[in-house]
Amino acid sequence: MDLIYRGKTKDVYKDNNGETVLYFKDDMTGKDGVFDPGENQVGLKVEGSGKAGLQMTSFFFEKLNAADIPTHYISADVEKREMRVKKVSVFGQGLEVICRFRAVGSFLRRYGAYVEEGAELPAYVEVTLKDDERQDPVINEAALEALNILSGQEYKEIAELTVKISELVKEELAVKDLELYDIKLEFGRDEETGEILLIDEISGGNMRVYKDGAYIEPLKLNGYMFEE
Amino acid sequence: MDLIYRGKTKDVYKDNNGETVLYFKDDMTGKDGVFDPGENQVGLKVEGSGKAGLQMTSFFFEKLNAADIPTHYISADVEKREMRVKKVSVFGQGLEVICRFRAVGSFLRRYGAYVEEGAELPAYVEVTLKDDERQDPVINEAALEALNILSGQEYKEIAELTVKISELVKEELAVKDLELYDIKLEFGRDEETGEILLIDEISGGNMRVYKDGAYIEPLKLNGYMFEE
Repeated sequence: MDLIYRGKTKDVYKDNNGETVLYFKDDMTGKDGVFDPGENQVGLKVEGSGKAGLQMTSFFFEKLNAADIPTHYISADVEKREMRVKKVSVFGQGLEVICRFRAVGSFLRRYGAYVEEGAELPAYVEVTLKDDERQDPVINEAALEALNILSGQEYKEIAELTVKISELVKEELAVKDLELYDIKLEFGRDEETGEILLIDEISGGNMRVYKDGAYIEPLKLNGYMFEE
Repeated sequence: MDLIYRGKTKDVYKDNNGETVLYFKDDMTGKDGVFDPGENQVGLKVEGSGKAGLQMTSFFFEKLNAADIPTHYISADVEKREMRVKKVSVFGQGLEVICRFRAVGSFLRRYGAYVEEGAELPAYVEVTLKDDERQDPVINEAALEALNILSGQEYKEIAELTVKISELVKEELAVKDLELYDIKLEFGRDEETGEILLIDEISGGNMRVYKDGAYIEPLKLNGYMFEE
């Protein structure tokens, strides 16, 4: 397989049939050895985190595909830490779409004058640009249009998909008495069909999950979800 | 007159008839003695700046009132640096609504990966919270709704008023061969009628104006506008 791109938590390969394969690494985003899904640098290496991330991702992507929500997912080999995906192009240099059910993280840091930590939010959606140099700035719908990153129609479609996907993840977590506070999604366009697809991953690494008001670390999440 | 509130560039008084009077001070926002409309601290004191600010403000507010755009403006006494205004309540702890015709300032700092300095923007509107402690964070329509600061209808009304007002200011400046790059407005609700009104001021201190591609400092702007 040929290495196409070396990412922070995943590497991208093209296999001998020209298919795209994501390899889940043991690197996690954070700062000074502490995991933080809001950080945009690798902060720690944890053995088993790549495999755990893929186990969770394949679980959710299969649920989403079954619910007819379009994703880039084709198949996964959890032991090999490989996920086969459709070929996509991203919007601009990549967007992150965040859905928030409770006020924590950067939302609280920005709007703390108006909201208590942990207050409920109505599946609130916001978009940030993937731009390490500029600390992933928040961007509104009008600016996405003005900068030709998304049309108004694309924004609407992505925001609606985001709520649908986040609600599904929230419900799956609730089955295990876990509560989703927020989740970060990425979208791309299917290079063959032009369809907007959920891409990247859905794992502990891109959501904040609580149980009885206490934050659950990403790696512990797999235990709650997949073990009896 | 009784002092009600001491602001960064204006003080608010109540006169003997209970009317609200704004007193324009000679303080300007900026940093280390350099004017910057994007800063939210007083950075310098310039004799004559209060009077110049009120001269410009009364000029634009009278134009706006004549164009049936609702503002808090009643009358001004430029020599005394006093402006009489309607009594209003602000949204939340106060919002700033920015209209941008060209990419400079914080827009460029945030979205510089997608836009060149000075590139044209289509009367792009964005809202920030007045919150010195949190550096006036940008906030989108969904968050304004989620935090009960603005309803969807109020957001729409304010965004439309912002474009109308900014276009009027842009046209008035163009008469003197000046170009408006961006402008920062504030809105409130008339305490008597409930109507949404433009409040605060419209002066060099809350806009960026260029002439032949060169930035014009706020105080020099009055010279271009009002002297032959």
